[in-house]
Amino acid sequence: MTQERRGTEVFYDLIVQAQGYDDAIVLGRGDPDFDTPAHIIAAAEEAMEHRLGEPSPPEGILPLREAIAERVERVNDAVFDPETEIVFTNGGQEALFLMVVAAIAEGDRLLVPEPNYNTYKDSVAFARGGIVGMPTYPQEAFRVDPERVRRTLISGVRALLLVSPNNPAASVISREDQQELIAIAQEHDLLILADDIYDLLVYDDFSHTSPAALRGGKERTLTLNALSKSYAMTGWRTGWVTGPADLMVRVRDLKAAISGPNSIVSQYAALAALTGPQEEMHAMQGAYQRRRRIVLDHLDAMGFSYGVPQGGQFVFVDVSHTGMSSIELSQRMLDEAHVLAYPGGAFYEGMDDFLRITFLQPEDRLRDGLGRMQRVMEALGVGE
Amino acid sequence: MTQERRGTEVFYDLIVQAQGYDDAIVLGRGDPDFDTPAHIIAAAEEAMEHRLGEPSPPEGILPLREAIAERVERVNDAVFDPETEIVFTNGGQEALFLMVVAAIAEGDRLLVPEPNYNTYKDSVAFARGGIVGMPTYPQEAFRVDPERVRRTLISGVRALLLVSPNNPAASVISREDQQELIAIAQEHDLLILADDIYDLLVYDDFSHTSPAALRGGKERTLTLNALSKSYAMTGWRTGWVTGPADLMVRVRDLKAAISGPNSIVSQYAALAALTGPQEEMHAMQGAYQRRRRIVLDHLDAMGFSYGVPQGGQFVFVDVSHTGMSSIELSQRMLDEAHVLAYPGGAFYEGMDDFLRITFLQPEDRLRDGLGRMQRVMEALGVGE
Repeated sequence: MTQERRGTEVFYDLIVQAQGYDDAIVLGRGDPDFDTPAHIIAAAEEAMEHRLGEPSPPEGILPLREAIAERVERVNDAVFDPETEIVFTNGGQEALFLMVVAAIAEGDRLLVPEPNYNTYKDSVAFARGGIVGMPTYPQEAFRVDPERVRRTLISGVRALLLVSPNNPAASVISREDQQELIAIAQEHDLLILADDIYDLLVYDDFSHTSPAALRGGKERTLTLNALSKSYAMTGWRTGWVTGPADLMVRVRDLKAAISGPNSIVSQYAALAALTGPQEEMHAMQGAYQRRRRIVLDHLDAMGFSYGVPQGGQFVFVDVSHTGMSSIELSQRMLDEAHVLAYPGGAFYEGMDDFLRITFLQPEDRLRDGLGRMQRVMEALGVGE
Repeated sequence: MTQERRGTEVFYDLIVQAQGYDDAIVLGRGDPDFDTPAHIIAAAEEAMEHRLGEPSPPEGILPLREAIAERVERVNDAVFDPETEIVFTNGGQEALFLMVVAAIAEGDRLLVPEPNYNTYKDSVAFARGGIVGMPTYPQEAFRVDPERVRRTLISGVRALLLVSPNNPAASVISREDQQELIAIAQEHDLLILADDIYDLLVYDDFSHTSPAALRGGKERTLTLNALSKSYAMTGWRTGWVTGPADLMVRVRDLKAAISGPNSIVSQYAALAALTGPQEEMHAMQGAYQRRRRIVLDHLDAMGFSYGVPQGGQFVFVDVSHTGMSSIELSQRMLDEAHVLAYPGGAFYEGMDDFLRITFLQPEDRLRDGLGRMQRVMEALGVGE
């Protein structure tokens, strides 16, 4: 815990330093740089004029849950009843919290492939459960190997976390592996907690399969998703959880007890995102593909190795050959070139050899930032 | 629990029946009938155009916390540091949850004057604490008698809940009683959980004092408030918790782990409500005062007794002289006159002799609904 705190402090210190440079480029940033599409804002304005008095149950208004059901069936090939199997949440964060707390009782353990987004630890601690970490490796493209899962299972594991496409590792779990992981869950009577938040951002020939879409999957899987990443809607707080009715009763009761319904304005904005024109969302997908190509081309030119990002908005870059830790190298690049790639060591245990670079800048800024990185690497004598 | 569930079912059944009548008047409704003031909507629209990319910490943007600090100092005479002592929440519900969970550890008990808004029970159960109920009585205007609090204290009580003006009892805790309750809290090292949500709706010569404003109060008090009632902003989800920095660290950590920041649109709407023109809020206060007078005059004419509402938006009406339970009488009035006053028995233990009537209708509808009640009472032979 102390070490994590120190990592976070290192990270904030770097951010503050970067803010001191007028020309800084933050290559590690995590929020979309796109604007929320205009038709979504128009729908929210309409809701503010005409819908504010409308009551909402804790799980959100029915038309929104119907739109989510339609989206999840279309994109994820999984069928949920909007009446009983969908709860709208205050962003992905609340979806994550509700999902974990609904699944994990005191003393239960959650098996978590690592590296992983740290916030899962807070939710599990809140539920008085424990984490069983399972490493994944860059040389295996961070694959969640079912055989390794099987060997890692210990008594008390109640659920298995599957984040695909993964944050931060950018790996996608294959359909075959998902099916095998479900089989393991069936054998050991485990729940599956699926984080699908990057499901629309998948590259090359990779494709995402939701465990809830597979035979035997739906009845033991809670899945979270949100519009923040794919529709550039971070500030709106538009997430959801789907799952079988028996598990969703608890998710819904928790939502009612913890925070009640979300803003009706955000609900109508989410409804418009899901049911309105999809061109801008598709254009953003295309932009991420082009940016990813630019980043990977630059990394290749610099001779870096990395886990090829199969999905998501990040790449993790191995810097071990520089002889510096990721924190040292981040600091050096910030000092010398005013470019900030986030040091993995500040976020994730065992990731001290990695820098995080994201696809969340316009192409010209990406090229500028990566060019600066290249000059630093050349000066260090480790570039190509 | 079973009995509560039955009560809730009875209540929803009455609501559904009322929806079947074109001319139904629901005298028990709990949401403001006013529209959100236009300048607040305009500020939200401005935020949607220009502020969506703005990052927010889990506790809300600093200008909003500064506006809350200013409001709390002006209205409640209590001083909080916006940097460390204020967390903005998804409505009063999340504020309540965070406050309870931050204060109550496993096995701790919360002393709760009754009748009380049931949702506190869910939060305490979530924290694995217990409730110690303490009755208050209509013939004492539901006063939270400090001497009775002292006698009710048992081992394990960690905190004292003070809802003033009270929901549902409409009583206001006097300054002297608040000071005495703080003294008890000091003696027994209790925290105080203060629910100030109706603090702008106080009638006649009554006035509300926040425990955090009194000597010895602030350092042991967490206070919740929200804009939903006073600014007609139910759908926006705009609540907050204030308290001393040492307790607020936990509230903030919980907010970060549970749901992250609220919608940036709602944050700017709340900022506009607090810092913009206050005329409409004052006009609503005036309307509630007039409506309350209309309701009480009709109740007097019908010969009912009731706890005089000192604050809030409700009155609890004693129907014991009719020889019917509140549920029976509600059903009778709905059948015969299409008017629905909520039966206390459906919501609160020990309130089966009471109907809840709210001040949340335009004056003409209030007169119409109360007139219908009067005709039913006359037909029953128990009216004046």
